[in-house]
Amino acid sequence: MDINKEIKTIKTLYENQLLKGELDFWLKYGLDYENGGIYTAIDRDGALLEIDKSVWFQGRALWVFATAYEKYGKKEYFDAAKIILDFIEKYCFDKTDGRMYFRVTKDGKPVIKRIRYIFSETFAIIGFAKFATISNDNSYKEKAFELLQFVDKIRNTEGILIPKFNRPTKGFGEPMILLNVLSELRVSYKEKESWINNYIDELINQIEHSFVKDDLKLVLEQSDANGDFDEEHFEGRLLNPGHAIEGAWFIMNEGLYRNNEHYISLGLKMLDWMYEIGWDKEYGGIIQYRDALNKSLCDYHQDMKFWWPQCEAAIATLMAYKITKDESYFEKFITINNYIQDNFIDNEYGEWFGYFHRDNTLATPLKGNMYKGPFHIPRMYFKCLELL
Amino acid sequence: MDINKEIKTIKTLYENQLLKGELDFWLKYGLDYENGGIYTAIDRDGALLEIDKSVWFQGRALWVFATAYEKYGKKEYFDAAKIILDFIEKYCFDKTDGRMYFRVTKDGKPVIKRIRYIFSETFAIIGFAKFATISNDNSYKEKAFELLQFVDKIRNTEGILIPKFNRPTKGFGEPMILLNVLSELRVSYKEKESWINNYIDELINQIEHSFVKDDLKLVLEQSDANGDFDEEHFEGRLLNPGHAIEGAWFIMNEGLYRNNEHYISLGLKMLDWMYEIGWDKEYGGIIQYRDALNKSLCDYHQDMKFWWPQCEAAIATLMAYKITKDESYFEKFITINNYIQDNFIDNEYGEWFGYFHRDNTLATPLKGNMYKGPFHIPRMYFKCLELL
Repeated sequence: MDINKEIKTIKTLYENQLLKGELDFWLKYGLDYENGGIYTAIDRDGALLEIDKSVWFQGRALWVFATAYEKYGKKEYFDAAKIILDFIEKYCFDKTDGRMYFRVTKDGKPVIKRIRYIFSETFAIIGFAKFATISNDNSYKEKAFELLQFVDKIRNTEGILIPKFNRPTKGFGEPMILLNVLSELRVSYKEKESWINNYIDELINQIEHSFVKDDLKLVLEQSDANGDFDEEHFEGRLLNPGHAIEGAWFIMNEGLYRNNEHYISLGLKMLDWMYEIGWDKEYGGIIQYRDALNKSLCDYHQDMKFWWPQCEAAIATLMAYKITKDESYFEKFITINNYIQDNFIDNEYGEWFGYFHRDNTLATPLKGNMYKGPFHIPRMYFKCLELL
Repeated sequence: MDINKEIKTIKTLYENQLLKGELDFWLKYGLDYENGGIYTAIDRDGALLEIDKSVWFQGRALWVFATAYEKYGKKEYFDAAKIILDFIEKYCFDKTDGRMYFRVTKDGKPVIKRIRYIFSETFAIIGFAKFATISNDNSYKEKAFELLQFVDKIRNTEGILIPKFNRPTKGFGEPMILLNVLSELRVSYKEKESWINNYIDELINQIEHSFVKDDLKLVLEQSDANGDFDEEHFEGRLLNPGHAIEGAWFIMNEGLYRNNEHYISLGLKMLDWMYEIGWDKEYGGIIQYRDALNKSLCDYHQDMKFWWPQCEAAIATLMAYKITKDESYFEKFITINNYIQDNFIDNEYGEWFGYFHRDNTLATPLKGNMYKGPFHIPRMYFKCLELL
């Protein structure tokens, strides 16, 4: 394989797909110039399927358009970021307790508030932090930092986050997403660098000890209260390869930034294990779930192919190649890229399809809902273009 | 088609599948003779996949084994019912508020309590009511009735059931399941017949006015606060054909019992509409979801084939044939039966598979989890054997 030639071709392809397929699609069909904010429940052809707005995606899309402005300097990206930012500040917080909603009406009335999770808040933090960078408005790095402290308070005060299970468990998602939040915040808030580095060390330590299991050669999605493998329950055996691979590149990325060999080898190990078990050798693609002991899975969508695990695997393999210069990682990246190009790209209307059956037939043609919108895909393009 | 010959063949087949494939499977692999109650998270071959127990299925399995005892008089069915009953009374209620849990450990410690729903309670009611019939222990019809009154209190007291949505909506599931609960309770509690009939009339009236839409020729799964079609939201357009067909036969059944022509024609209309939109003309089977306006669906498992909609469609079409003598209903019943026999039955280990992709390839081979266990399938056999 002529790696340099491949890199050149894919760079051109990704830049074009990012600007035309992604950002233009969401500017045209998602942005709500009337009420502010962004819609994400969009059909294949751009038609609106649902008039409520996802609060996760207000924060995520703010981050995306702010990052796009940082990289390409186009005014319309800045304006989009500002429209979303204003909507978040005006409508997405519950003024009575400071928590954020999960879903609001098009004009910002609350529809759903989730009591178990802090993800609406974490995505607003990365949005605020990136907006601080592009606007030079330091109040937003302060707001991001205050929101992070509020999230910490929520996480550490008993009785606020009501857990689903009476039996105490630990979830991989929370430290993994916080790790990304902190590394985003660090870019805009240099003064807090050493505090943030310590916090990140603590999170990676949690991940390494509670979820990365050398005896199983697996990254768990949930462990018991002691951080041990809980093999008697569906949730304890559940593997989410896309999630684990996302965490793997967050940790490699931290290793690169901090020049920390241990983090780099930890991230590589996580990627190797979870690519091995997550890649579908028959039909291609990173599969949604596996069982740690290869027992029958409980979730009926376990063998589907979603868009975002493919994004995370593309970033992680390319990063691993950049770190190790091991061509087998580059080959994996090319395999994933080909799988994406063959299945997910909609050349007619722009934006990727999101949901395929295991055999790569389309399950539903919509481009977005409350869980799919502008985030993983543009982030993949941003990160891969940096790495290429 | 020689209908009488078909009826004879299927009667023999169903009785055999009910006793050997169903009841024996759950007696052997599900019943917990050590701790009491029943496990439902069982793999294809009977292996236990998850040691927690579903509270829904304690009530449902109690109903199943009590009904089996009523019909076949085998002592082991009575004993199974008693083991489950004792587990429910001892462990499945939260003593602090009288509500029931959703999931408990094998020895009855609480794991999950759901705050939005009353389904654990409704399934315990039908179990208690049927146990009263087989045991002649009138205290259980009293307990069933008291639990029903408690459910009513919960439903009608603001602030107890915390709705998921801030925007007020109505769900088809609640009146539909209560209708079934009341008709089960009536069998054991003859003295309350006229009170129960009035309550059922009110529930059917709610269903007819809020969910059965003549202009759309559809049964909605969720309507807005006024009982109108809410076309701007995913949930408002969502159709659940299996659920609607289940409600259709509950209403036909009530029409037969009460000799009420209006209920019979209402149930037939619901069946006709929802079979038409729910049957997959390409691959067979009742599909999981449709969109009322044929827009792209949000749920990625929307085109799967689950076991229970096939059960409900078999009962409803056979009942419609018995009522109308219209052979096209019998032909539909045969089509559904053939679809079930070709795909769902596991002749090697017993019990049905539960989860197929749209093209009838198997999605996961397990026989049960927190949502699949002994209920829809044995109920289908019981009801179809009665009707045949």
